[in-house]
Parts: sequence; C-alpha cells; structure tokens
Amino acid sequence: MSWCKNVKGVLLDITGVLFESGASEPIKGSIEAIKRLKDSKIPVRFCTNETTKTRHKLLQKLHSIGFSMTEDDVFPPIPACCQILKSRGLRPHLLVNPDALSDFREINQENPNCVVLGDATDNFSYQNLNKAFQLLMSLEKPVLFALGGGKYYKEGSDLILDIGPFAKALEYACDVEAEIVGKPSKSFFGAVLQDLGQPAESVVMIGDDIVNDVGGAQSCGMRGVQVRTGKYRPSDENHPTVKADGYVDNLAQAIDLILQS
Amino acid sequence: MSWCKNVKGVLLDITGVLFESGASEPIKGSIEAIKRLKDSKIPVRFCTNETTKTRHKLLQKLHSIGFSMTEDDVFPPIPACCQILKSRGLRPHLLVNPDALSDFREINQENPNCVVLGDATDNFSYQNLNKAFQLLMSLEKPVLFALGGGKYYKEGSDLILDIGPFAKALEYACDVEAEIVGKPSKSFFGAVLQDLGQPAESVVMIGDDIVNDVGGAQSCGMRGVQVRTGKYRPSDENHPTVKADGYVDNLAQAIDLILQS
Repeated sequence: MSWCKNVKGVLLDITGVLFESGASEPIKGSIEAIKRLKDSKIPVRFCTNETTKTRHKLLQKLHSIGFSMTEDDVFPPIPACCQILKSRGLRPHLLVNPDALSDFREINQENPNCVVLGDATDNFSYQNLNKAFQLLMSLEKPVLFALGGGKYYKEGSDLILDIGPFAKALEYACDVEAEIVGKPSKSFFGAVLQDLGQPAESVVMIGDDIVNDVGGAQSCGMRGVQVRTGKYRPSDENHPTVKADGYVDNLAQAIDLILQS
Repeated sequence: MSWCKNVKGVLLDITGVLFESGASEPIKGSIEAIKRLKDSKIPVRFCTNETTKTRHKLLQKLHSIGFSMTEDDVFPPIPACCQILKSRGLRPHLLVNPDALSDFREINQENPNCVVLGDATDNFSYQNLNKAFQLLMSLEKPVLFALGGGKYYKEGSDLILDIGPFAKALEYACDVEAEIVGKPSKSFFGAVLQDLGQPAESVVMIGDDIVNDVGGAQSCGMRGVQVRTGKYRPSDENHPTVKADGYVDNLAQAIDLILQS
C-alpha cells in the first residue's frame, strides 16, 4: 500500500469520519487515532463542508464528544465565503441553515447582488428556492455561491440531499455556474494546504465522500483515501470517475497504516 | 419572412400563448386566431407541458375562457407517461401536483420502481425531494421521468421554477439521466406530429419557451416561432444556443402571417 508512505500532513473530513451524522458518539477509535497522529508531529487540519451550524457550534459538538482540536484547525466554508464576499463587494441573499446565519453577521445583506446556498435543509422549500431563483434572474450578471458541491450525506440510516443538487437546480434554471466554496474547490483545498505548510504530494486527505473528499484532493495533487464509514457505499469502490488511492475500514486503520509506514 | 410559407400544420403551446399563466382571460386575439386557422383547414394540435391539473380540468379552463378545442386536440405529458409506465411494467413513486394525481389512477403505484416528477409546486419540499431521492438510490437501476424539461414559467408577473431544475437536482444526486416525457422530447413531439398527419418540415410550432418549444421543435425538423407573450424575455432573441425561425408579438400575428402566405 503506497498511499501511506512518506505522509507529512493529513487532512480529515469531519462528519462520517470522526462521528456518524446525527450520532452523539465518535466513530470507534477515532479520538485515539487523532491523538496518535498529533503525538507523531504530523500536522493535521479538519476540512469540512458542514454548514448546518456555526463554526463555534461545530467545535462545541466535537469537544462534547471528546475531541480536542482548536478553532484554527477547522476549515468550514462559511468563513472562506465571507472573505470572498467582502473582497468582491458582494451582498448575499442567504439560503442557508438558520443555525449558520450568525457566521454571516458582519456581511452586508441589503439590496443583495448574489445568492449563497448553504445546507438549508428544511429551508430548501419551493418558496425559498423560487426566491433565490428570482433574485438571480433579476441580476444582469447572476452570481451564485454553493458552500460545497456534495451530492448527499448520511444522517442516521438515511441518505439526505446535500447542497450540490440544489445548486445544480439553480444553475440550470438561471444558466449560471455556481462558484463552489468548500470541498472540492481547489482554492478551498489550497488555503488549507497553505495553512498546513506541506506540499500537496506529501499530504493525504481522508474522507467518506468519494467525489468531494477523495476526487477533490486528488485533483489538487494530494492522495485521497476513503473510509468505509459515514456515507460510504460499497459501489463507491467501483466509482465511474474516481479511484481512491486507498480504502480503509475507518479513520483508526488509516492512521495506523500511516504511522507504521 | 420565410417561416410562414407553405405551412400545412400548426402546433401550439397553451400557457403563455393562449392565456397568461394565472390569468382567467385569453391573450387578446388568440380565440379568433384559432378560429381563422381552423376555418382555413390547416390542422392544429395543442402541445403542453401543463401538469398542475388533469387533462379534463385543463380543458374545462380553456372552455371557460372561450376556446373550443376537444380533448383529442390536446397533448399533455401525463397520458403519454402513463402509456410508457404501462408498457414497461413500471410502478411510479409520484412527485406531482395533487391536482394531477387522478390522471394516474389506473397505474399501479405499489412497491414503486421509478420516480415521476410533475410540476409539484409547493410539494417540491425538502422532505418530498428527499423521499424521491432515497427511492431512486434504493433501486439497482434508478429510473426517473420528468414531465417536461422547462426551466421556468411565468405566473402573474413572477418567474417560477418549472420541473426541469428539480429533475436536474435528482439527476445530479443519483447519477441518473431523467427521461423527459413532454416537450422538448422527440418522442413526444413525434407522437403529436403523427396525430397531425403532416411531415415535420411543413409544420410550425408556436410557443413562448425558446428552448422547449422553439428549440425542441427545430430539433424535430419543424420550424419554431416564439411569441412575445408568456415567459418571453427580450434576451431570448439573443439566446446562446437557440435561434427561432421567427418572433411575433402574439399568436394572432403568427396566424395572420401564416394565413397571408
């Protein structure tokens, strides 16, 4: 197994890798695995498309189930999106989860000139999708941001629609291409790699999403490894376009293989 | 203007051509225009993607505002879809408008093995989209039908999302390609042309949708003409991929041009 050799940095997805979506316990062995990784001095960052809560609440949840990363270790899309909005003078119409709204509190939202889609869950109503659509159609140059391009995630035993499908709906309706902020966007991975301080070819991304985690990391020159937890499905190992550098049963096995190499 | 010469058959879209969506009056001159067309013995069929009501209710509405076509003249997608479902032994999970349900009453819907998307309007909720998604993901070979591929339509002064964007969302989420029943599908236009009894090159399709009406008809060898009523927008006349054979202010003008040629 060559994917685990000479690893000088690790990026980890959160939901489906550290804990199962909807569960309040860590996936077995994952807390100890991250401790072993930290003890080995291999730097690690957490790279998530989570937008159903603020970064602060996400961290609270991680701490409550036994993890000890700091806010600086965690890279969710909303802070990255706020930076882009500010730098381009854009005022968003937000179709996001109510629990994520406060992460946008410093952003001017009057007289909006773009749309930001987060994981709005129940707020992805016909009415709200029409509002976002109508705003985009009213703009001379419609600008649409999607906080991640995921197709679906797993909650309990159910697969649930992620942001990607709703972004595709608005892309088609408005003849516009969404700008993805979050995985698998190269600028998002690039910012995390820069913070990690290691070249892409020395870094392994470990996630449960064959396209956004594994394929996205590979497109940036990293190795991509899929865990058989979270939204993993056996058919992912025969995915038509993405072949992972490795498949492991869970995070603990991945870290063991890295540390043994 | 060559598009109006030697016309031996006419296909008409209904909403946005005969009346404005949401309005209870015909578009000025359209009733008389259809009478003149019928008097001239040029055959006409009505080709609609309307799936917010049964064919019976649609006809009631048309008659109530002064039109006199019969049920046999009107081609909506649901009867065509029911034929396909029966012939392929498919049992649909329906995500359609409640007002259209009774057109499916003869179709076995137990233990569904495909999904049919109609213009579900408010029923396009996060919950219902997830149900359709989960069913598709549970099938070894997911089959998705979309009763039309329109991007949007106009209701009062608002542009409203049509079925197409929701079909794109499920296509992306499930890695499946929707089978479109209705405009702009070739098999749908083909069935109407066969009923009309005229070769495609002698037939003009008149509609307000530059892609589904005009582009769809052109793909089948017909001429496609766009009316400047309904969901028409001036930018349609510079559409990146579809160039209509003609643009007219309304149906009455189109019919006058055809009959004068």
